[in-house]
Amino acid sequence: MKLSLNPQAINDVLDGRWAEGRRRGRELALDPRSHEDPADDLETTRAKTLVGVGLMADSGLPLVSLPPELGGKNQHATNVAGFEETVTAAPSLQIKAGVQFGLFGGAILHLGDAEQHKKWLIDVQTGKLLGSFAMTEIGHGSDVASVATTATYDVDAEEFVVTTPFRAATKEYIGNAARDARAAVVFAQLVTAGVNHGVHAFFVPVRDESGDPMPGISIEDDGYKGGLKGVDNGRIAFTEVRIPRTNLLNRYGDVSADGTYSSPIDSPGRRFFTMLGTLVQGRVSLDGAAIVASKIALDIAVRYGLERKQFNSVDEIEETTLLSYQQHQRRLMPALAAVYASNFAHDKLLASFEEVFSGADDSEENRAVLETRAAAFKADTTWMALDVIQECREACGGAGFMAENRLVGLRADMDVYATFEGDNTVLLQLAAKRLLGDYAKEFSNLDIGGVARFIGTRAAEHSLYRTGLANAGTAISDVFSGNLSEKRIRSGRLQRTLLENRVESMVASVAQNLRPAMKMSQAAAGELFNSTQHELIEMARAYVELEKWKALDEKMKEQTDADQAKVFRRLRDTYGLTLIERHLGWHLMYGRLPMFRARQINDTLNRLCAKLAANALDLVESFGYGDEHRRATIATGVEAQRQAEAADYFRRARAQEDFPVDEKHLRKAEKAAAKAAAKAAAKSGNRSGSKAGVK
Amino acid sequence: MKLSLNPQAINDVLDGRWAEGRRRGRELALDPRSHEDPADDLETTRAKTLVGVGLMADSGLPLVSLPPELGGKNQHATNVAGFEETVTAAPSLQIKAGVQFGLFGGAILHLGDAEQHKKWLIDVQTGKLLGSFAMTEIGHGSDVASVATTATYDVDAEEFVVTTPFRAATKEYIGNAARDARAAVVFAQLVTAGVNHGVHAFFVPVRDESGDPMPGISIEDDGYKGGLKGVDNGRIAFTEVRIPRTNLLNRYGDVSADGTYSSPIDSPGRRFFTMLGTLVQGRVSLDGAAIVASKIALDIAVRYGLERKQFNSVDEIEETTLLSYQQHQRRLMPALAAVYASNFAHDKLLASFEEVFSGADDSEENRAVLETRAAAFKADTTWMALDVIQECREACGGAGFMAENRLVGLRADMDVYATFEGDNTVLLQLAAKRLLGDYAKEFSNLDIGGVARFIGTRAAEHSLYRTGLANAGTAISDVFSGNLSEKRIRSGRLQRTLLENRVESMVASVAQNLRPAMKMSQAAAGELFNSTQHELIEMARAYVELEKWKALDEKMKEQTDADQAKVFRRLRDTYGLTLIERHLGWHLMYGRLPMFRARQINDTLNRLCAKLAANALDLVESFGYGDEHRRATIATGVEAQRQAEAADYFRRARAQEDFPVDEKHLRKAEKAAAKAAAKAAAKSGNRSGSKAGVK
Repeated sequence: MKLSLNPQAINDVLDGRWAEGRRRGRELALDPRSHEDPADDLETTRAKTLVGVGLMADSGLPLVSLPPELGGKNQHATNVAGFEETVTAAPSLQIKAGVQFGLFGGAILHLGDAEQHKKWLIDVQTGKLLGSFAMTEIGHGSDVASVATTATYDVDAEEFVVTTPFRAATKEYIGNAARDARAAVVFAQLVTAGVNHGVHAFFVPVRDESGDPMPGISIEDDGYKGGLKGVDNGRIAFTEVRIPRTNLLNRYGDVSADGTYSSPIDSPGRRFFTMLGTLVQGRVSLDGAAIVASKIALDIAVRYGLERKQFNSVDEIEETTLLSYQQHQRRLMPALAAVYASNFAHDKLLASFEEVFSGADDSEENRAVLETRAAAFKADTTWMALDVIQECREACGGAGFMAENRLVGLRADMDVYATFEGDNTVLLQLAAKRLLGDYAKEFSNLDIGGVARFIGTRAAEHSLYRTGLANAGTAISDVFSGNLSEKRIRSGRLQRTLLENRVESMVASVAQNLRPAMKMSQAAAGELFNSTQHELIEMARAYVELEKWKALDEKMKEQTDADQAKVFRRLRDTYGLTLIERHLGWHLMYGRLPMFRARQINDTLNRLCAKLAANALDLVESFGYGDEHRRATIATGVEAQRQAEAADYFRRARAQEDFPVDEKHLRKAEKAAAKAAAKAAAKSGNRSGSKAGVK
Repeated sequence: MKLSLNPQAINDVLDGRWAEGRRRGRELALDPRSHEDPADDLETTRAKTLVGVGLMADSGLPLVSLPPELGGKNQHATNVAGFEETVTAAPSLQIKAGVQFGLFGGAILHLGDAEQHKKWLIDVQTGKLLGSFAMTEIGHGSDVASVATTATYDVDAEEFVVTTPFRAATKEYIGNAARDARAAVVFAQLVTAGVNHGVHAFFVPVRDESGDPMPGISIEDDGYKGGLKGVDNGRIAFTEVRIPRTNLLNRYGDVSADGTYSSPIDSPGRRFFTMLGTLVQGRVSLDGAAIVASKIALDIAVRYGLERKQFNSVDEIEETTLLSYQQHQRRLMPALAAVYASNFAHDKLLASFEEVFSGADDSEENRAVLETRAAAFKADTTWMALDVIQECREACGGAGFMAENRLVGLRADMDVYATFEGDNTVLLQLAAKRLLGDYAKEFSNLDIGGVARFIGTRAAEHSLYRTGLANAGTAISDVFSGNLSEKRIRSGRLQRTLLENRVESMVASVAQNLRPAMKMSQAAAGELFNSTQHELIEMARAYVELEKWKALDEKMKEQTDADQAKVFRRLRDTYGLTLIERHLGWHLMYGRLPMFRARQINDTLNRLCAKLAANALDLVESFGYGDEHRRATIATGVEAQRQAEAADYFRRARAQEDFPVDEKHLRKAEKAAAKAAAKAAAKSGNRSGSKAGVK
């Protein structure tokens, strides 16, 4: 059952094309000055996190993504991969650094012009100018188009006047705001010459040299949150704050001195989505960060599960190791498989991210693919991380609840990943609309006008999205045809067909349901759309699951070492069958899977998980982390040491004459003796009886 | 759709028979001196929690469960119900009070004799003598029989010598230990005259008057955990600690001065389970506490969901309230239904708890039912609470992540409920074994000897357990017979039959799988058992789900007010169909549900959730909590106030002449104008053309 694996070789596969970035990030994460201690108070934790941000800046990593004219290398994925790995130091560090370099710096890079780059960008990416990314308001988070802060151009002064018109328009949950930011990129409705041109980004100084808020700026501290203690979130409100005209980040929209608005993109809707699209890095890196956090949790739980023993279920004396229990395997091994699948899907996401942002292929189509995947993957993976970390925490019992074993802290920090940078349910709907748009384009001869109404400007405009779903159409009948030789449930073709077919059928079903919408009033159409919302979201998750499965399947096929290929197959089948089991009702209800085959799944998964458990240590060792990344007492071997001490004690004690005997053994012996005596008595009675009879 | 409901009337149904205890608990929870503040440091939080424990003691509630001769009322459920409600003050308070009065006091009450009661119990229940319950060790949590601390009788000194023989035998995660306990009930292997009589409980002073550890006692602080910051968990180790012989809590096992052991229960296994069985209160109260925490979370999330608006999906200007969205309804309404079902199932658990502990019916059979249900319900409900609170937190978006809105703190505190007082997976196996035992007894004419091997001493000895499963056997075919008039998927009979049939089939299947075990070696039998572990655990959860559904169904049938009965039916159907949807694969795979009927479930749930959402405020109002129980900023109406401010601003702004017009409206107007001009031009062209033609 156990395969001979080389964790270093598997680590190379996992780290993939951006291995260098990952190694740099992992190296950075080792510095104890940025490590949180649960006993630290809020300000100490924030200060440590800032030290970590400084270390990252000093490493030069944030400069890598800049264009060559600013001393950068125009490398985007390396940079992101490195950031993701700093989750092993602390998710707070990844987020605070993400705000500073990815969002604040990223907005200047992508939304500003060359002059603005020169003025601010080097200072930002070297950590000299600390900043915030002020988009979300109390009243509007995921619906960015509705933010209510205004920036009104004053033609006489050649300045914008930034204002928070009412309380709900206060910028909220803004990272770096409560303590460290000197400036912020503020998203506000740009108004000039009596026209509101929609949301644009502005560079606004928020604190002076001594750290006091600038005139007209009021800042409040968000205080304690469910996690991310090292990130100083806060609220920012503006009362007639004046900034120079040239502080408008003007790549996609500018205002001339006389107040004339101009933009290279004519359609206000398209312009808005293009601006937002440049900020996709945040979602990409959350996808990756959630994978890193899941890896650390599994690394800890698997190591503990291989040492910790409880209950002597197989042997009279020797207790059983946790990971030998079937349920323990069923808790942790599917999680391991999901993390592997997510890892390879994320690598493909990074590849597309690199293509778009390096300029190698920044076509409209490629951007659309990137944005759709980033949104959908971020949603699925951040939820996966919460489930995986919680499973790991429970699998470690009470020890898992101790802060010193990291799991509870990791989970608390990752919690908000499910709702920030776009609420997961909103992001999945965004992805779902793209899938519908594709479908509408592909079958444009059909009357599916209703769909067009909902898929939004951007989705309606982009060219055919490459889901590849069109191929799945007829495959389902092939798989169950008499010609099929792969009869076992582990057939990759079967898994792929089921997963593909589910996405395609759901897309077709939703599109069909939306057909009448075109002829309806807005209210009626809105209600019709709402009545499919649950299915829409399920459909987008089904799409991500398929994409992750395919990424793992592809990677499996690349493996040349026999045992390594075998373990990848086990991972793929475990992931695939877990997905099919999760949606088994669907596959059966629509006749995709015969009942007898469905009944094989549970046992097959049991066997697969047992096989994976035999190599569980190799599979977590392959993540490439050391004790100093895990920093969990229970994963350092103390459990095995304690057990050795206990075993040693019992060995020595039993050797002594006065070691107490167990009452239950005495009772057994008594019973046995009584039985023997009764037997003997009966025998002798019989004998004397027969003797008497003879007499 | 909206029913006319009276929340006070529903509250009476929810509070049920122990309403007085609940009201006392809720009253106690209002005192702000025991409320945690996330900004407080560890010691301040602990001190506040201790204040809360003092308030509870002062209220006299902990005395209610004592026998009349000690001034009590021999009322057990009232007491527990009251404790459960203190979760609204803080889960730390419920746990610290639970340790003090329920575990420390409970152990003295149930395991000690009248003299010991007189000596300690009043001081304990009035909070004068603070104590710990020292059962779990680093090496053994859920497997209590294996704890390794020893209490060896020294006949010369007439004392027990309590010792921690090795590091893994250190008492761990012991509540009250790090800071407050003066004494502890310590579970240790009782050794006298060279015989180990198994685990017994001893009263051991651990700190002197001034708070310093007693000689031979070493105490360490567990420090920071994932939650329950107010509970001072710690480790206790004993180095030859001497206690008087009479400190053995001697109800089920005693040692005379000369070292002779005696017990009213002959079998060591049965004795052990009897002793543990008396401590069932802990699990009962965790079941109830998890329900209270879920209620508070839903109360907060529903109120916010009814005020918060986002995206204008139905109306051009007015944004849509979160709880109008289908997915939001699907997130929160099934959670609400599950909480109602759990509430009524818990009430039945309390009734059985009261029967057993008041002595009204403490038969072996009744105790077995109580213990099985307490174990299984605690597991299912604590997991439910984690899911429900997380769903609520995410449903509140970023605001849900702020500590001031309670949800993250509640979840962090409830996290450990899944693994303490018995790990949930272990507890479900315990319940599963009882179900198997029942099955074995019921069909004792069958050869299912293999089952007997695993169901344990206690389960094998208890009389037939009243699952009522025997009745389910033939019902499935009835439901689908031609005679059936209830054709709709909302049929209660259909739901019940499916849920019952699932439990029964799983029990029969596992029993069948275990048949060969009797003829196997221990190792082989252990492996066979392990190979069914996953199904075994699923089977126990299926049993709890059925019991909860039945409790809600019964309560529904009791309702006389038409609308109230109707909302209970909606809740029951939502709970029932959610369960059936969750296990849809199973029901289809084994042919219990036709495919066409399965396909109705999703839409039916969508409609049910929309209906429940119409009365969501009534349904949370019925929980009986006020602002001072919720203490969540977002649930106080601030959101509605902020929206009113914003609406007011826009109303006034639009009335002004210089209010900017949206560029997108301008573009629309331009397009329309261009179109009109083109049309006009074409028309006039046509006209002139035709004119020309006429010419």
